[in-house]
Amino acid sequence: MKRTLARESRNMVGERVHLQGWADKVRDLGGIAFVVLRDRSGSVQCVLEGASPPPPGSVVQVKGRVRADQRAPGGAEVVVEEMEVLASPVEAPPLDAASPVLRAGLEALLEHRAVSLRNERIRAVFRVQAELSQGFRSFLRERGFCEIHTPKIVATGTEGGSELFPLRYFEREAFLAQSPQFYKQIMVGSGLERVFEVAPVYRAEKHDTSRHLNEYVSMDLEMGFIEGPEDVMDLEEEMLHYIFESVRERCGEELRLLGSEVPDLSGGIPRLTYDEAVSLIGRDLDPEGERQLCAAVGSELVFVTSFPAEQRPFYTMPAPGGRTRSFDLIFRGLEVTTGGQRIHSYDMLLESIEAAGLRREGMEFYLEAFKAGMPPHGGLAIGLERLTMKLLGLGNVREASLFPRDRHRLTP
Amino acid sequence: MKRTLARESRNMVGERVHLQGWADKVRDLGGIAFVVLRDRSGSVQCVLEGASPPPPGSVVQVKGRVRADQRAPGGAEVVVEEMEVLASPVEAPPLDAASPVLRAGLEALLEHRAVSLRNERIRAVFRVQAELSQGFRSFLRERGFCEIHTPKIVATGTEGGSELFPLRYFEREAFLAQSPQFYKQIMVGSGLERVFEVAPVYRAEKHDTSRHLNEYVSMDLEMGFIEGPEDVMDLEEEMLHYIFESVRERCGEELRLLGSEVPDLSGGIPRLTYDEAVSLIGRDLDPEGERQLCAAVGSELVFVTSFPAEQRPFYTMPAPGGRTRSFDLIFRGLEVTTGGQRIHSYDMLLESIEAAGLRREGMEFYLEAFKAGMPPHGGLAIGLERLTMKLLGLGNVREASLFPRDRHRLTP
Repeated sequence: MKRTLARESRNMVGERVHLQGWADKVRDLGGIAFVVLRDRSGSVQCVLEGASPPPPGSVVQVKGRVRADQRAPGGAEVVVEEMEVLASPVEAPPLDAASPVLRAGLEALLEHRAVSLRNERIRAVFRVQAELSQGFRSFLRERGFCEIHTPKIVATGTEGGSELFPLRYFEREAFLAQSPQFYKQIMVGSGLERVFEVAPVYRAEKHDTSRHLNEYVSMDLEMGFIEGPEDVMDLEEEMLHYIFESVRERCGEELRLLGSEVPDLSGGIPRLTYDEAVSLIGRDLDPEGERQLCAAVGSELVFVTSFPAEQRPFYTMPAPGGRTRSFDLIFRGLEVTTGGQRIHSYDMLLESIEAAGLRREGMEFYLEAFKAGMPPHGGLAIGLERLTMKLLGLGNVREASLFPRDRHRLTP
Repeated sequence: MKRTLARESRNMVGERVHLQGWADKVRDLGGIAFVVLRDRSGSVQCVLEGASPPPPGSVVQVKGRVRADQRAPGGAEVVVEEMEVLASPVEAPPLDAASPVLRAGLEALLEHRAVSLRNERIRAVFRVQAELSQGFRSFLRERGFCEIHTPKIVATGTEGGSELFPLRYFEREAFLAQSPQFYKQIMVGSGLERVFEVAPVYRAEKHDTSRHLNEYVSMDLEMGFIEGPEDVMDLEEEMLHYIFESVRERCGEELRLLGSEVPDLSGGIPRLTYDEAVSLIGRDLDPEGERQLCAAVGSELVFVTSFPAEQRPFYTMPAPGGRTRSFDLIFRGLEVTTGGQRIHSYDMLLESIEAAGLRREGMEFYLEAFKAGMPPHGGLAIGLERLTMKLLGLGNVREASLFPRDRHRLTP
């Protein structure tokens, strides 16, 4: 007998069904028991007569017949004919995942992830996150972008920074990649022109804040033949509209559970230069400045453009007055995207490497792409966990990571 | 003026177009020159009169008018009105990427990746690869699977093996994940039931063969409420049919370029037990055995099932006679998938850990999921580069990796 999902079963009054799932709530009234059976689709109430009910939290399979009952949630319930317990909890779990809101601190939620992820509000975060990454890919594929997979074990950093995790790679020292920057640029030059990657990146930053992870998922894109950073911002604006609409459509239940609202992008995203932003808020664009900026502009999303050259990596296309053709996107007070136009001239790139006090050694494979001729290009990177966090109104980026890695956390 | 792609321009006879791309081939006949302009969509011939042609390999933009010409490839060409060189090669490249078949050894192709990827046959490999990973995700999403992102920095290995890359994680030692095994099982138990991940995995194996990479992309899935490994094999069979058909539909040009044929799965994939396979070929299922097996069975794909317990990790569901509820998929003589049913009982798992000579320490977060009750479940992992390699008939798995990491290769 084929399995029926809980959600479907409620529309099958009079039919026999075979359900599998978790016995989330068990009410034993003596002689009759009500069991809320939950599976990946939702829940349905099961009525068990003349048999002892399963322990709460058990994994069960049920055969029975659906009958209409106005008192049951969804207007139908399953009268159990057979119930088999496939697995039971061996001890009381450290957290009560079945309660609507888990009463536990973040540390406990993260420490007992195998249990806390069983809470529906916590699980909902990751269903939404799956839509965000799929939305990113779907939109870009429709625009002619090709997915790439680039190595995370590298011989040198891309930003010249010291914040790299060192690694023993057989006899040699290697590092974990901070970003696929060099590789995605090479792929633009390969003739693919438009590429994207959704993959982990690594930052050995000692920050221990609510917005930093040491391993996170970076949604990267790079595109050739742009006129300037505006082309990349235009693309991101359309893309976020597409992604948010797909979350709104597919994750209505999750958004309701989390009390979250998807921003309306129909009016576009305001764009300010760095200088305008700083002068508007009267302070630097540090985390507090980012929060104030969204309020001052009166928009949930704000593009900040034309950052000073000293704040951007060497491959950023310069602009007059010590500025760059770069941008950040601030979403509800937090930077979720960094992007811009890149230098495409080989000679200009060499000068920029030198001016930044970096060495060409170790970058030969990257420079080779520029020697062979590179089109004008640019791109961006979106932090998936930060995007999830701000979209869902979470207080800490760790809540948007299944198994976060931070300054102190290496397990679970 | 909006950009037109080369492929579209050939259907726009009489219209003005704005093209951007690479001047792949340049024939200067003195006073008149023919330039094949290539972009991500394909190529179109441009005719340049009374101006000096761009250096071959340049990045150019062209404004001109399309006219019908039976002698031009595709029956149309662009009469150039303006041509601007956006970037030129600064020196002769180490490889001639524009030639139809690159005459270079694998070492040179990999060493000069930024140039060799400009060859259309090499680039075609990665367009097909992008369809394989997207096909995996699309199929699984249609079947109710949820995408997950799990950490690649871990405190312990999943297989108890010694083939881990060690890493310095702040003050502690950590490792690169060999597989998302523990995490994907936890996510089945979370109630998501069906999950997948496409992400890098790491094996510090000292092998230096044509089929091993030390960093590769693993396409993992895990599903709850199975009856046995047959459910996972059935799913893979349908999935490969779906993926291959989508490659056939979307990558006709790439398959033609590479002279590759997609296997026909309409007859299903034969299934043999390990014992049957070994007895059929009269030798062990080592690499040579895998090659012989496909020939002996007369099928491009063969499932081998019921491996001996000593060949499978501790979490594999045992079967009578020292066998396991496990399988491999052999594709054109190479293992591309390992999968099976997992142990879901907490007590049985503890016994299996002990029997394997492993310690529970470091696995607490994994065991917690089993303590809370796990449904019967199973899953598989497909090596993306191996699948690409065998589908396209490549001789070495490194050809199916943009920037391979192997025993000796840490750059580009």
